Amino acid sequence: MVTTGINSLFVNGTLGEGMSMTVTERKAALEQWIKLKPDRFKTIIAHVSCSSIRDTTELAKHAAGAGADAIAVMCPTLFKPSSITQLVKYLKAVADQAPDTPFLYYDINVLTGVIFDTGEVMRQCKAEIASFSGIKYSCRELGNFEAAQLESENGRYKLAVGAVDEMLLPWLPLGAHVPICHSLMGTIHRATREAYQAGDMKAALASQDSAQKVGIIKRKYGSDIPISKAILRMMGVDMGPVRLPLQDMAPEAYEQLQSELKAVNFLP
Amino acid sequence: MVTTGINSLFVNGTLGEGMSMTVTERKAALEQWIKLKPDRFKTIIAHVSCSSIRDTTELAKHAAGAGADAIAVMCPTLFKPSSITQLVKYLKAVADQAPDTPFLYYDINVLTGVIFDTGEVMRQCKAEIASFSGIKYSCRELGNFEAAQLESENGRYKLAVGAVDEMLLPWLPLGAHVPICHSLMGTIHRATREAYQAGDMKAALASQDSAQKVGIIKRKYGSDIPISKAILRMMGVDMGPVRLPLQDMAPEAYEQLQSELKAVNFLP
Amino acid sequence: MVTTGINSLFVNGTLGEGMSMTVTERKAALEQWIKLKPDRFKTIIAHVSCSSIRDTTELAKHAAGAGADAIAVMCPTLFKPSSITQLVKYLKAVADQAPDTPFLYYDINVLTGVIFDTGEVMRQCKAEIASFSGIKYSCRELGNFEAAQLESENGRYKLAVGAVDEMLLPWLPLGAHVPICHSLMGTIHRATREAYQAGDMKAALASQDSAQKVGIIKRKYGSDIPISKAILRMMGVDMGPVRLPLQDMAPEAYEQLQSELKAVNFLP
Amino acid sequence: MVTTGINSLFVNGTLGEGMSMTVTERKAALEQWIKLKPDRFKTIIAHVSCSSIRDTTELAKHAAGAGADAIAVMCPTLFKPSSITQLVKYLKAVADQAPDTPFLYYDINVLTGVIFDTGEVMRQCKAEIASFSGIKYSCRELGNFEAAQLESENGRYKLAVGAVDEMLLPWLPLGAHVPICHSLMGTIHRATREAYQAGDMKAALASQDSAQKVGIIKRKYGSDIPISKAILRMMGVDMGPVRLPLQDMAPEAYEQLQSELKAVNFLP
Repeated sequence: MVTTGINSLFVNGTLGEGMSMTVTERKAALEQWIKLKPDRFKTIIAHVSCSSIRDTTELAKHAAGAGADAIAVMCPTLFKPSSITQLVKYLKAVADQAPDTPFLYYDINVLTGVIFDTGEVMRQCKAEIASFSGIKYSCRELGNFEAAQLESENGRYKLAVGAVDEMLLPWLPLGAHVPICHSLMGTIHRATREAYQAGDMKAALASQDSAQKVGIIKRKYGSDIPISKAILRMMGVDMGPVRLPLQDMAPEAYEQLQSELKAVNFLP
Repeated sequence: MVTTGINSLFVNGTLGEGMSMTVTERKAALEQWIKLKPDRFKTIIAHVSCSSIRDTTELAKHAAGAGADAIAVMCPTLFKPSSITQLVKYLKAVADQAPDTPFLYYDINVLTGVIFDTGEVMRQCKAEIASFSGIKYSCRELGNFEAAQLESENGRYKLAVGAVDEMLLPWLPLGAHVPICHSLMGTIHRATREAYQAGDMKAALASQDSAQKVGIIKRKYGSDIPISKAILRMMGVDMGPVRLPLQDMAPEAYEQLQSELKAVNFLP
Repeated sequence: MVTTGINSLFVNGTLGEGMSMTVTERKAALEQWIKLKPDRFKTIIAHVSCSSIRDTTELAKHAAGAGADAIAVMCPTLFKPSSITQLVKYLKAVADQAPDTPFLYYDINVLTGVIFDTGEVMRQCKAEIASFSGIKYSCRELGNFEAAQLESENGRYKLAVGAVDEMLLPWLPLGAHVPICHSLMGTIHRATREAYQAGDMKAALASQDSAQKVGIIKRKYGSDIPISKAILRMMGVDMGPVRLPLQDMAPEAYEQLQSELKAVNFLP
Repeated sequence: MVTTGINSLFVNGTLGEGMSMTVTERKAALEQWIKLKPDRFKTIIAHVSCSSIRDTTELAKHAAGAGADAIAVMCPTLFKPSSITQLVKYLKAVADQAPDTPFLYYDINVLTGVIFDTGEVMRQCKAEIASFSGIKYSCRELGNFEAAQLESENGRYKLAVGAVDEMLLPWLPLGAHVPICHSLMGTIHRATREAYQAGDMKAALASQDSAQKVGIIKRKYGSDIPISKAILRMMGVDMGPVRLPLQDMAPEAYEQLQSELKAVNFLP
């Protein structure tokens, strides 16, 4: 139910299919994670976006009461805001219902289909939302990221990268200090970052290339979430079946994928 | 809260911002409409799509119990089905929870961003869903519509057109017999259809042109739903404020739009 | 080398792969068609768009000198105009080099990827281009077409429909009086129009449906131009091989398509 | 007429509006650059793509005869290849007409609108085209680039990055060793790369950020090529007016842009 990273939990997020859960289920999942909060995780972020702003607000209040360290909201995806100003009005209406909990904007334009200038989103969030704390950026546009970074006031506002498409290395020199990683790529991404920080660019690229090779295999099997969950199962982390409209991999495809991942030494 | 047509009510639909309402609100709205059901409406269709299939299923069962004449479901829009087969699995999982209530697929690709071959969707729905009754088609692709019409078995399966973009006339010769109309265009569209059915093509085109002129004005003011509701208010039907992320028109824009609509004699 | 219609020739157009020909080849093809001009064709329109405006202008002047009845230019597709105003500046720069020859804008947004408000394009062309005569509209957007029709000053400016996607009937009540048809659909489209004009809507729809059935078969085989030319060959009109980057159908696919078209009685 | 880089000339490329020139003009421009070839440029690459493959082939043969060091061809943009296989057939047909001159595929999907898997393109080019030498990659997709890099056989095939959107730094750790830079960003990009290669990540990011700030200003003024040429003029390099359908900046916008670029110390 969770996208794990190095040191934070993003509860009811995309990989956790949060938007496919009911309000009641999402509250229960969050409460359980807060209760079980492992020591190595410093931060629990509750993703509270729903289709109805009333549900979103209810989840935001609940997360604040339950002790989440932050809440995150994405751009509405069916009725879309007509401008950045309109998006920020929406975000503010939610954030102001949980005013003491740090607020993150969750930019995941590959899912929402709404691509705004993230630098301008950050400028307006800083001006309008008292609890605004930063952006979880799960997009592919590095220019947009750098524009937002230029608005971050030297880290006063956080900018975390979601490492879409098995890509981590190119984000590092741009100053993406706190990546929340694909849970299944966690080990490789950590190695990439350590090599990069040690100045060993050759090892960093080799590690990044091994992530890309997994990505190339993965993309042959289609839709991201069921494939990612299947690989996690191969790694011993069973997140349970996906929910409609998604569909778990067929057994033959599962086995073929497993063979391919063994062949590149991603799986033992 | 409703998109009205000639003789049917589509409750909690797009113009009613159904997807911006909570499960509780949607149940209440449906119950109220069924209770108040005006004599001239033969059919009440409950739109039950939610982001979570569990909520969708709950609304489907509720609608059946409350006495709705049909239920309608659109394509999921955040996690998208990867194929028509996958979409139909999703639709079937909902429909089978209300097996005695006629089931409609609500195709509104301008909102969902998912464009499938509607003829093939109908073929698979007919084969898989016992309660499948037809499609509410709120799209612009006439070829897709005609392909679906060819699968309708001479009207055994219904195909209703939503008349997107103030466009009705071109759909009529294709055999779109049961249009559910834009509530604000109802009068003009009825006149267009009557002229067409009487064989008076000149009058039909003049009527269609007057709808298009309204559309040209409307589109200058942007996002569809707030503008449509503003015009309904000018016509005396106050549907209340829109909900975030949408935004009601600013007063000056409202007045300017009203002047323009008076100038083309759409408003008295 | 030509898209034929009921009574006009569109030389070096899309089906003729005009943009895949050299300037020299296009001049030769036009001269030959003007020389051979069959009696039943009233009008020869020369499509003169090239990637370089200097080539476009050279072809425009040549067409005027060679006796073409009109010239047509589409929106540039690699370097795209940033606005309608910029598009019309470009069109005017060409038209003004052949000032005595009627000028048509060729709107084929499925190919160019540039979708502008065609009503506004017509307004600006009327104001800026002395020889402007109308628009050849090979797009799917009926609303855009009707908006342009409202600017046509009761037929002073022509608006011809290209009947994309085997669709003719829906355009007829909108007043599309002078369709230039898909050459391979000419017979069916003529029957559709005759039935429509005679007020026999049932026959008109039956005829339109038979065109759609051909379209459904055709689309299974992919890219439009090679398939259309293959079907023309089956009908006895050999236009010769397509040119790279296009590719003629493989023999097995050709035969399978032919069988399918015989099965729906499109071919004898 | 040229996109300059550190040590190579890309003649008749995008910034040079090669596709807006006639065949005769492109030959003359190439001959002149080869004649004037400055000592510091090791390589002259001739961009030979035209709308007609006959013109493309003619330019390829001419470039080989005139002594160009390499030829480059982009994906056709009006009639698009339906698959990578079809694209490579097209490229091969051109390359084989100049078999002794190294051949580059020019991937610039922001212009052509065709996004293929560049790794697969490289695989097929290596297998099919004897003179294939590498890819000039002017796209934003880093994953696609890395996939192609994995096919480069340790630099046997070249992969040069076009640094779209003022972005250089993220490409460097991926092993993009031979960037052909935006001519106007040459100085900044060189500084970024030197700092990166010296392991001074702080200076590298500062330099990259200064490029991004210029980019943020530039994008406010719209379409890329006229703005880039205006800035080059401000820097003392007058490339002459752009050609329709593009349009040079209006004088007031030119002056405002100049003030903004002075304010961030990009211009003295």
